Amino acid sequence: MAVNLSAPMNLLPVAGLRLGVAEAAIKKAGRNDLLVIELAAGSRVAGVFTQNAFAAAPVQLCREYLKATTSIRALLVNAGNANAATGDGGLADARATTAAVAAELGCEAQQVLPFSTGVIGLRLPLQRMLAAIPKAVAAASADAWTLAAATIMTTDTVAKGASRRVATSQGEVTVTGIAKGVGMIEPHMATMLGFIATDARLTPAAVDAALRSAVDVSFNCVTVDSDTSTNDSCVLCATAQVGSQDIDVGDADYAAVAAAIRDVCIELAQSIVRDGEGATRFITIDVGGAMSVAEARQVGYAIANSPLVKTAMFAGDANWGRIVMAIGKAGVSGLDPASVGIALDDVQLIVGGQPHPDYREERGAAVVAKPEFTISVTLGRGAAQARLWTCDFSYEYVKINAEYRT
Amino acid sequence: MAVNLSAPMNLLPVAGLRLGVAEAAIKKAGRNDLLVIELAAGSRVAGVFTQNAFAAAPVQLCREYLKATTSIRALLVNAGNANAATGDGGLADARATTAAVAAELGCEAQQVLPFSTGVIGLRLPLQRMLAAIPKAVAAASADAWTLAAATIMTTDTVAKGASRRVATSQGEVTVTGIAKGVGMIEPHMATMLGFIATDARLTPAAVDAALRSAVDVSFNCVTVDSDTSTNDSCVLCATAQVGSQDIDVGDADYAAVAAAIRDVCIELAQSIVRDGEGATRFITIDVGGAMSVAEARQVGYAIANSPLVKTAMFAGDANWGRIVMAIGKAGVSGLDPASVGIALDDVQLIVGGQPHPDYREERGAAVVAKPEFTISVTLGRGAAQARLWTCDFSYEYVKINAEYRT
Repeated sequence: MAVNLSAPMNLLPVAGLRLGVAEAAIKKAGRNDLLVIELAAGSRVAGVFTQNAFAAAPVQLCREYLKATTSIRALLVNAGNANAATGDGGLADARATTAAVAAELGCEAQQVLPFSTGVIGLRLPLQRMLAAIPKAVAAASADAWTLAAATIMTTDTVAKGASRRVATSQGEVTVTGIAKGVGMIEPHMATMLGFIATDARLTPAAVDAALRSAVDVSFNCVTVDSDTSTNDSCVLCATAQVGSQDIDVGDADYAAVAAAIRDVCIELAQSIVRDGEGATRFITIDVGGAMSVAEARQVGYAIANSPLVKTAMFAGDANWGRIVMAIGKAGVSGLDPASVGIALDDVQLIVGGQPHPDYREERGAAVVAKPEFTISVTLGRGAAQARLWTCDFSYEYVKINAEYRT
Repeated sequence: MAVNLSAPMNLLPVAGLRLGVAEAAIKKAGRNDLLVIELAAGSRVAGVFTQNAFAAAPVQLCREYLKATTSIRALLVNAGNANAATGDGGLADARATTAAVAAELGCEAQQVLPFSTGVIGLRLPLQRMLAAIPKAVAAASADAWTLAAATIMTTDTVAKGASRRVATSQGEVTVTGIAKGVGMIEPHMATMLGFIATDARLTPAAVDAALRSAVDVSFNCVTVDSDTSTNDSCVLCATAQVGSQDIDVGDADYAAVAAAIRDVCIELAQSIVRDGEGATRFITIDVGGAMSVAEARQVGYAIANSPLVKTAMFAGDANWGRIVMAIGKAGVSGLDPASVGIALDDVQLIVGGQPHPDYREERGAAVVAKPEFTISVTLGRGAAQARLWTCDFSYEYVKINAEYRT
């Protein structure tokens, strides 16, 4: 059902990074579901994580490890089990898996960041994972990005990845990222597992800054179903293999590298929405004329998460009354309906709070019949704007989520 | 699909109030879709209305008229068209319909409160409504409550009404109410049309106080789909026919009458959820141990509106990981997962933030297989609590809302 999305064909290797996968039969047998990403010594890593108060065990460990060391040497990812709401036992399980990777690589457990995705509330099948970890390490290679993207899928129907190359004064730099996630998606800090890597020699501060600014306009601007996962994690690894001069925030090369990282994140975030559970429409929501970016996003999310707007879009019904309703319920204090405008692509629906005299139902219907379109809203209050991406709400969403565990 | 809900059989007449219905073919022909409620001189009326910034034309007029006069003599209600987002023309239409009722009854237009429900963004069929109004007035009788409840339905599958009798020092008092609404339901002030009447001699201040306190624990505690209508309106009419002494807030009889009004509102609000679009489960959500009622409601709504919780409940799947996720995403600052408890009816799932050792999947599954059950959450932060009602999220919800206009 994914909207204009196909699996990535040419994900570019990143010098200093190798990926290995294995089968641990975590939820079911017959598929790769465990991934180890090895990083060269000297790599700089930054992560952003879920704002959900019930952060999963691996998220808790990532936060702990990233405080304890700046020398991360590997990432361990499993699909099929989120290791969330598993109490102290779950935390011990996650710790044991990182120790197992560390033993293979000859480093400390806290140099291995763990990530889990899948069902909440079940303990990990620890023994099967410990058995699979050496196999994944043994299989590692630089060109396994596509295999890795497929390994971390859960209800995803299409693997998600993106690459960019960008010239710097020290030579050409590569940025490659993969992500997974199609439901429980309204990240608020990061999405349900995004891994972005570059061989650029970014300083730790630059890695952190580039990740946060990229996430803010990509993973933090998508919603499938308004639900925020307990496991959302997004990591940027800079392996520092190109050149010998560090690139810090403000340096000449920083802007170009950060832009490539941002572009990869936006492409990945859009891929998540295109493959949103049951999605048949990919919808961009532009809100302008707001008093702040936060206000623009508040209105954008009210539209993007309204079940009534989303079911109308699924039906290809230009039921703009529901867009009006969603703007009105967004809770913008003092919003003046008489200054609001709404358009579907270039078809103006509402101008100055009144129905546009030239609007005809057929014109709106022609827009929402397309698999991709934009809902534009102007609030007439200020100059701030925001852009979000969402999908529609179909029978298939209910089916996927009513049957997820059975 | 309504959950344990049947049409009201014995709605008690309220002295001083008559109801008349007629067919105006507002959305389609062949059904009554216009209701006039006449009130005796001396009736006291209070209303609460939507917080949606795009309040519909009838809501705007209600607010204007209630400021202009304390002598309301009639309510005019139509189904099939919301008269919302219709601009200045829609406001003129609503004004014309109230003038037409006033002409029939020999009062001023501003003594007639208008209410509309149905599709947003279309103009009313004014001529057909003006033709139907005299017929509705001519048909008015004291015992047409059940007919009235059916007349105001849109996608409702069952008419909604409730009655109570209560003894006062001046004699027995009756409270009867009707409501409609099954989608675009998260009222935040009132639901999509609730009309409650009593023959008690409540003062205007007591009418207002009794309505607000009743709505706060009834219509403001339900959600079907998190969407807030542009037309939500709830009105309490006291016809002052019983006794000769006014009942004010704090008077001996006030508590009993207010409790009867509250009970009618709770029954009506629950009816709306039981008939929620596509509903197969009626779910009570109790949140305790909060630092404030607002905080308890915040957590309750996060659960009640989570598409993932709602689809799991539809599947009869005790997927409590999604309840954990919803609590965690509610945005309660400083929430300590280690103090949280969760139960399904009397089956404890989480105690002190950890899975309960005695919990077995079968026990949770047995609860959520039932058409009615309670999700209880304790936050372990304070003494405040809140109770909400919601329903599940089914294929049928998508079907109803994808096909609503076609």
